[in-house]
Amino acid sequence: MIHEVIITTRSSDGDNQIAPMGIVWHDQEVTIAPFHPSRTMTNILSGECAVINYCDDVRIFAGCLTEHYDWPLTEAEQISAPRLSDALAHTEVQLQRVEDDPIRPRLICLPVHEACHRPFQGFNRAQTAVLELAILVSRLDRLPKEKIEHEIAYLAIAIEKTAGERERQAWEWLMERVIRYRQQIQEGV
Amino acid sequence: MIHEVIITTRSSDGDNQIAPMGIVWHDQEVTIAPFHPSRTMTNILSGECAVINYCDDVRIFAGCLTEHYDWPLTEAEQISAPRLSDALAHTEVQLQRVEDDPIRPRLICLPVHEACHRPFQGFNRAQTAVLELAILVSRLDRLPKEKIEHEIAYLAIAIEKTAGERERQAWEWLMERVIRYRQQIQEGV
Repeated sequence: MIHEVIITTRSSDGDNQIAPMGIVWHDQEVTIAPFHPSRTMTNILSGECAVINYCDDVRIFAGCLTEHYDWPLTEAEQISAPRLSDALAHTEVQLQRVEDDPIRPRLICLPVHEACHRPFQGFNRAQTAVLELAILVSRLDRLPKEKIEHEIAYLAIAIEKTAGERERQAWEWLMERVIRYRQQIQEGV
Repeated sequence: MIHEVIITTRSSDGDNQIAPMGIVWHDQEVTIAPFHPSRTMTNILSGECAVINYCDDVRIFAGCLTEHYDWPLTEAEQISAPRLSDALAHTEVQLQRVEDDPIRPRLICLPVHEACHRPFQGFNRAQTAVLELAILVSRLDRLPKEKIEHEIAYLAIAIEKTAGERERQAWEWLMERVIRYRQQIQEGV
């Protein structure tokens, strides 16, 4: 089972990194598997720790694809890493072992601290529509044009019917990317 | 902004009712708007209270469409109603006023108690795929056959890639309904 979360880490130079990622839990262990190359991976390998942020603000997921990185951070409690101030909950993890792979190494971690900050508010269809559009935007040049347009039309219904302001903002950022891509195709770039 | 939640209520005869519903918050007020006729509505009108359960177990959403109602309940703290024992969080609300409507009356409520039981675990694409399939199943006889099949094929990808056991179970319950509907169509019922 894959959960979409925001991983926050810190480099050996002290730079903070925010990245959306799918994680998998097996019993008490969690696997984070970033694609090479990845700052998050470099930071986890050097610092041997990370924060898993359980976050319902989809602007942060969309922002990482659209150069909006300026999200409030708070220092983690048990490890040297930042966490998202607005996460609903977070888990601080320590690197346990690495299963190497040329494409996607698996960083297996153990939780050392967990905190719940705000309650889950229920499912919102627009939030998942934003996540699905984010996945689409990250693969624009690998997908058939018809598939892209068809999925966007489908996802837009949930935005129209159920989105709040954060979801609309995230959707707009991602759609700017789609519009730019459409223009590039039209111009034969 | 619409959040998909589970509403639990109690009838004047003491029967508990579990129903999935979309709710809308405006400042401190929450609007619950069930379609006529609705046991949840009857119960809120008579008991003047309800519990909003923020729940990530999509079996409960699928179960309400497929006759699986046997979910553990716990007594609410401030009102006379049950809550889902496994909800991540819940809000107990009291009926404030009713905006009547022949199709979909609006029950406007105020929170009287909120509790967070477990942290949100991050987004899971399969969970939303189940919710979308549930919406589809509730409208099978009103949608074109091609649209149904196309959406199911799209949603099945998230199930295949990201589901856990609860999501697979919920998906199966709903797909049994789809399969039965396909058979009815073939047989010209």
